[in-house]
Amino acid sequence: MKPDALARTDPSDPSDPSDHWTLARRTARMTPSVIRDILKLTENPEIISLAGGLPSPRTFPVSAFAAASATVLAHDGPAALQYAASEGFAPLRQTIADFLPWDVDPDQLIITTGSQQALDLIAKVLIDPGSRVLVETPTYLGALQAFTPMEPSVLALASDDEGVRIDELAAKMGTGADKARLLYVLPNFQNPTGRTMSEARRAALVQAAAERRLPLVEDNPYGDLWFDTPPPAPLSARNPEGCAYVGSLSKVLAPGLRLGYIVAPKAIYPKLLQAKQAADLHTPGYNQRLAAEVLKNGFLERHVPAIRALYKQQCYAMLDALDKEMQGLDVQWNRPGGGMFLWLRLPEGMDATDLLPRAVARNVAFVPGAAFHAGNADPRTLRLSFVTATQEQIATGIAALAAAIRDCQAAG
Amino acid sequence: MKPDALARTDPSDPSDPSDHWTLARRTARMTPSVIRDILKLTENPEIISLAGGLPSPRTFPVSAFAAASATVLAHDGPAALQYAASEGFAPLRQTIADFLPWDVDPDQLIITTGSQQALDLIAKVLIDPGSRVLVETPTYLGALQAFTPMEPSVLALASDDEGVRIDELAAKMGTGADKARLLYVLPNFQNPTGRTMSEARRAALVQAAAERRLPLVEDNPYGDLWFDTPPPAPLSARNPEGCAYVGSLSKVLAPGLRLGYIVAPKAIYPKLLQAKQAADLHTPGYNQRLAAEVLKNGFLERHVPAIRALYKQQCYAMLDALDKEMQGLDVQWNRPGGGMFLWLRLPEGMDATDLLPRAVARNVAFVPGAAFHAGNADPRTLRLSFVTATQEQIATGIAALAAAIRDCQAAG
Repeated sequence: MKPDALARTDPSDPSDPSDHWTLARRTARMTPSVIRDILKLTENPEIISLAGGLPSPRTFPVSAFAAASATVLAHDGPAALQYAASEGFAPLRQTIADFLPWDVDPDQLIITTGSQQALDLIAKVLIDPGSRVLVETPTYLGALQAFTPMEPSVLALASDDEGVRIDELAAKMGTGADKARLLYVLPNFQNPTGRTMSEARRAALVQAAAERRLPLVEDNPYGDLWFDTPPPAPLSARNPEGCAYVGSLSKVLAPGLRLGYIVAPKAIYPKLLQAKQAADLHTPGYNQRLAAEVLKNGFLERHVPAIRALYKQQCYAMLDALDKEMQGLDVQWNRPGGGMFLWLRLPEGMDATDLLPRAVARNVAFVPGAAFHAGNADPRTLRLSFVTATQEQIATGIAALAAAIRDCQAAG
Repeated sequence: MKPDALARTDPSDPSDPSDHWTLARRTARMTPSVIRDILKLTENPEIISLAGGLPSPRTFPVSAFAAASATVLAHDGPAALQYAASEGFAPLRQTIADFLPWDVDPDQLIITTGSQQALDLIAKVLIDPGSRVLVETPTYLGALQAFTPMEPSVLALASDDEGVRIDELAAKMGTGADKARLLYVLPNFQNPTGRTMSEARRAALVQAAAERRLPLVEDNPYGDLWFDTPPPAPLSARNPEGCAYVGSLSKVLAPGLRLGYIVAPKAIYPKLLQAKQAADLHTPGYNQRLAAEVLKNGFLERHVPAIRALYKQQCYAMLDALDKEMQGLDVQWNRPGGGMFLWLRLPEGMDATDLLPRAVARNVAFVPGAAFHAGNADPRTLRLSFVTATQEQIATGIAALAAAIRDCQAAG
C-alpha cells in the first residue's frame, strides 16, 4: 500500500515544523505513571513483581468468553459490531444494576471504557481549572492522573485504619465558589493500602458530606473481593443523590475488556452522558454483549467466590512470609480483609524509594508509597500486591525484600 | 444481592443533597448530539433513515471475527483478557503502520478507543481554555463535541468543492500566544459533505501550514472507501512532523470494536500517550488482538474492495433517484467519489431544519446541514447517507424527500 515517495517538506527548511506545536498548559502536570515505569523494570522474568495491580489471570473465565463470543456472533453479530448507544447495552446495565447492593435504576448507569474512564468523565463534568478536589491520602494513582488534566487544586485528607479522616473536612473543603467539587474515596480494600472504611466512618462521612453539601465520588473496584465478610454497605447506598459510584468488571471478570460503569445522580447524569459521547461515542458493544452473555444466570455468584478463595490464600501466603522473614526488622504491615494489596511500613529512617533499587538487585519489586500521595508522603511506606505472583514466588519475594531491608540497614 | 434497606439520608432534610453538585463551566457548552436526537426520531421502523452514519452491517466480517475470537482465546486467552500497554498491541500497531500509505514507524502510533477518542486526546493535549482552534465548515460534529470540553474558541474556515479554503488562514489563525493550536480537516469523502480535497489544495494547505507553523489534525475515517480512484496522498504523508493523523477501523472492519488510532509527531506523542493512560488505561486488548488476527495476511486488501463496490452501488442508486425525483425542484447535490455521504442544497428560501418534520411525516429522515457548522450555517443544506438503507429504501426515501420539498414549497 506504499505509493512512490512523496515530496516532503524539507526538514532543513527554515519553516521546519518540529517547533510549531504548542502544548496545552495542563500537559505540564501530566506525568507518566511511576508504576508503569516500575513495571518496565520488572519485565526481566527473574524479578518477582509484587508491584503490579494485575488480577491473577488464573481467575479469567476464558472458556466462558469463548462460548459467549460464539453465541453473540452467531445470534447477534451485525448488531454487536455496529455503533451503539452511548449509555451502554441495556441488558448489561440491567444486570449490573441488579447485582449492586442497593436499589439502582439502570437509567442511572453509564457503561464506561473501564472505571478509569468513569474518573475521566467525572473530572470533565465536575472540575474547573483551580477547583478544589479532596482525596484521601494515600489514594489511587489513576484517579490523580484522571483528575489532573482538568487542572484541579488537589487537597489531601489524612486517613487512618478506619478510612479517610473526617475531622479535616471543615478545614480543607472551602466555602462558596471555592467549595470542593468532590471528595474521592475508595472505601473497600483500598488501592494502595488494602484498608476498608469502617461502618462508623461511613455513616459519619455520609452525614458530614450531606450536611456540607460535599459531593462524594465512591470508587469500588475491589468490594466483591472480600475474604470472610463483605464490607459495609457503600456510601452511595446511603445517599444516592449525593454520591457518584464508580464500579468495574476488571477484577471480577477480566480487565482486558475494559468494562466499568458509573451510577450517577440525576443532577450530573445528562452531562456525564454527553461527556461519554464526546470521549469515545460508546464502550465497545461487542464487549458489552459478551459480558452480558457471560453474566447471565448468576455467573458472578458462582465465579467470584473462587476469586475470593484464591486471593485469600495468596494474601495469607504473603502474611505468613512476612511473619517469618521480617522478624526483628521493625517492619509493620496490615492484614487486609480482601482485595489485592497490603501496605507495609519500613523501619524509622528508611525510605522505600531508596530501597527499591536494592530490592530489584535481589530480584523483587514493589511500589513505593510516595507514588500514591497527593500531598505529604510517608517515605517509609510501600505497596505489595499478593495476587499476581504465585505463592512460591511470594515466599521467595518476601525473603528477598527482607534481605534488601537488611542491605539498606547495613549500608545505612 | 440486595441487603435490607439502609437508612438513607432523608430527602426532606434541609441538607437535601440534590443541589450540592456544582458542574464545571465547560458543561454549559456540552450539548447532546443533534444527530442522536434525530436518530431517536427514526427508531420508528416505518421511517427510512438517510440520517445516520452507520456503516452497512452487511460489510461486517462476522465469521472472520468468530474464527478470530476462537483463535485468540484458545492460544492467548489470559493475555487477551489482562491489562495491557497504553500505546496498544504491538502487532496491531505494526499492521496499521504497514497499511498506511506513507512511511510510519509503529512507535508513532497509539491505538485509541475509536477515532473519537483520538480527537478527545488531541483536544486535551493541544487546547487550553480560550485557545483558537480552526475547523473547516461544515465539519464533523463529533470533532466539535470532542474539542468543546477543552473550551476552545472555534473559528470556521469556509470550504469549497476542493476542500477548506486557505485564503482565510492568515486572517483567522492569529499570532503569538493567540496563534491557533490546530486546524482540523477531514480531506477524504468528508463527513458531512462527501467532498474530497484536491491534490492542488492539499499541496497548498500543507505548504501554507508549514510556513505559518500551524499544526494540522487530519482525520481520515473514509479514505479507503473510494469508488474508482484512491484520493490523493494524506496531508500527513507530506509533512509528518507537522500533522497528527487520526484513523479508524470502524468503516473498513466494524465500529462495534471501537478501534481507532493516532499517528503522532514526536513533539506531542509522549503527552498523547499520558493522556491516553489517564483516559482509559488502554483500549481493550481483546479487541486489539481480534483485529490483529482478522487483519493477518492482507485481509483488508480482499475485504475493502467489497465495501467499495457496495457503497458505490448504493451511492449510484441515490444519485439515480435524485436525478429522477428532484426534477424541476432547483435542488443541487454533489457526486462523491467515495465514502458514505452526499450533500444536498435546497431551493432558495428553504430551510432544511423546517423541512425535517415534513420529511419525517413522509417517513424519511436526514440531518440538516446546520448541525455540522461551527459558524455561519447554510440553512439550505442537508446530509444524506447512502450506506445504511437498502437501494429500494433509497429510491422510496428520495421520492419521499422530493414530496416533502414540494409540501414545503406549497406551504411556502
